[in-house]
Amino acid sequence: MSIAEIGEFGLIARVVARLKTGPKVLLGPGDDGAVLAAPDGRVVASTDVLVEGRHFRRDWCSATDVGHRAAAANLADIAAMGAEPTGLLIAFCAPVDLDIGWAEDLAAGLSAEAALVGASVAGGDTSSSPTLTIAVTALGDLGGRPPVLRNGAQPGDILALAGRTGHSAAGYTILSRGFRTPKALVEAYRRPEVPYAAGPLAAQHGATAMIDISDGLLQDVGHIAAASLVAIDVRSDAFTVPPQMRDAATALGVDPLHWLLAGGEDHALAATFPAGEPLPEGWHEIGRVYDGSGITVDRKPWSGAMGWDHFR
Amino acid sequence: MSIAEIGEFGLIARVVARLKTGPKVLLGPGDDGAVLAAPDGRVVASTDVLVEGRHFRRDWCSATDVGHRAAAANLADIAAMGAEPTGLLIAFCAPVDLDIGWAEDLAAGLSAEAALVGASVAGGDTSSSPTLTIAVTALGDLGGRPPVLRNGAQPGDILALAGRTGHSAAGYTILSRGFRTPKALVEAYRRPEVPYAAGPLAAQHGATAMIDISDGLLQDVGHIAAASLVAIDVRSDAFTVPPQMRDAATALGVDPLHWLLAGGEDHALAATFPAGEPLPEGWHEIGRVYDGSGITVDRKPWSGAMGWDHFR
Repeated sequence: MSIAEIGEFGLIARVVARLKTGPKVLLGPGDDGAVLAAPDGRVVASTDVLVEGRHFRRDWCSATDVGHRAAAANLADIAAMGAEPTGLLIAFCAPVDLDIGWAEDLAAGLSAEAALVGASVAGGDTSSSPTLTIAVTALGDLGGRPPVLRNGAQPGDILALAGRTGHSAAGYTILSRGFRTPKALVEAYRRPEVPYAAGPLAAQHGATAMIDISDGLLQDVGHIAAASLVAIDVRSDAFTVPPQMRDAATALGVDPLHWLLAGGEDHALAATFPAGEPLPEGWHEIGRVYDGSGITVDRKPWSGAMGWDHFR
Repeated sequence: MSIAEIGEFGLIARVVARLKTGPKVLLGPGDDGAVLAAPDGRVVASTDVLVEGRHFRRDWCSATDVGHRAAAANLADIAAMGAEPTGLLIAFCAPVDLDIGWAEDLAAGLSAEAALVGASVAGGDTSSSPTLTIAVTALGDLGGRPPVLRNGAQPGDILALAGRTGHSAAGYTILSRGFRTPKALVEAYRRPEVPYAAGPLAAQHGATAMIDISDGLLQDVGHIAAASLVAIDVRSDAFTVPPQMRDAATALGVDPLHWLLAGGEDHALAATFPAGEPLPEGWHEIGRVYDGSGITVDRKPWSGAMGWDHFR
């Protein structure tokens, strides 16, 4: 059954039935606004939008996958501020002939990904549109800590990584060449595994700067360098190429280091920490902060792509 | 210059330059997330999306107008919960050939409308898309009051209105028939005049239920009736047709009462109050709450449209 047949309010009723409201959402969908807990007295908020053909393809990802990806992209931003996610709001624009089941499965994916961090979908809006579009806003609570910004990295700091990079980019390349395996990489593209807990943990351990790697490690660490007025060097020997990724890279004629350093959408977290302290669990060193500006790899300029620009 | 020429980060820099960050936004655009004040310990959040061709046309509204309308639709939802808006997050999807000036003017309109209530744009995201789409999330603070929901209306309550209805619908009809005057009605469509302060004021004065009239008075008051398990009667003699609206209705062959009772997008607020108490400033009685279910006009069924469904 299409959305046109069921109508706006029928769609909302069917979608809301697929959501589970958690304890941080004090008032869920159904009124003019949702009400979420903000015990800190401040709220962290971030918006990310996914557009069909640009951020996802329906023949590459199930609706549930798209829900997981859309939620992950936003929840990772909250974690990268050092906050705990509380809830999501969803703006859902769809062609009128979209099957209602697709929208229901999207909601299930959004809800399931949010539940991984104790958050839930608090509300949203729907409209018809020629272009299937999902805009998600995530909210989070800082738990009394200062937010970890991009501008606090200091020369001498350690650059550290939580989570994995390159997997989603490898999966994307595999799918775009018409293949469907290795499954682990394709699944990494479909459903990123985000190290959510590493964000608040880094904040508790004195991270000086932090960012969600959504567009590519070098590009996003470049944002820390630019905001902090420092240079950052990434050590390539901090990265190991998993065997499946190496095999896929060889078969496709790609340098896997480009996936690892410039691939986005795994939503790993990068952060800087003062040197001389042990890194918190789940974090490992991948580089250093120096006086100067810009990004280097092994102390040399990087010749490849740094990441992804959504308008080029 | 097009967005494609300037790129994603160029676009963001140009747009952010048009925003004014107010005191309720503790950390504005530029990091993974924004940080907003939430002194109440809870945050009200609402999302509304505008799609070109569905919610606006570029030949009918300037980019600044679209910014005002998009902000108003969301800020009104916050007011309808009885809360004070604090900030907006914007997901902006645009064709790559869109002129950068359009995006800058949109930002200026969003920022100016938010400033009317002491709020500001806190952050956002951009993507290319074939369909120009603006999804806005508004956040607000309850100031220690309970939120005013849709489900609290009681038989015997007074139904009251703050703000005007029918003006935006009249302007829409005028534009859709190819006319550009009367200017006051066309301008009402382009930039709704929302009674923001009436929302928190109603909450302070014991409103039992409240809603933002975005889709049409009868349809939206119908949501109060359905959620509260009551019947609501709207008195048509509570509405006066302004002379310009009467003239336009006559010229276009429209019953102006249909604009007033079923037209949306003026973002007036409707609320129910216990009888016997004076209504707060800016509110006037337009009906009564009864035992039963559904909506009547002058105690009779309404034969016309109730409002607007975004998928039909």
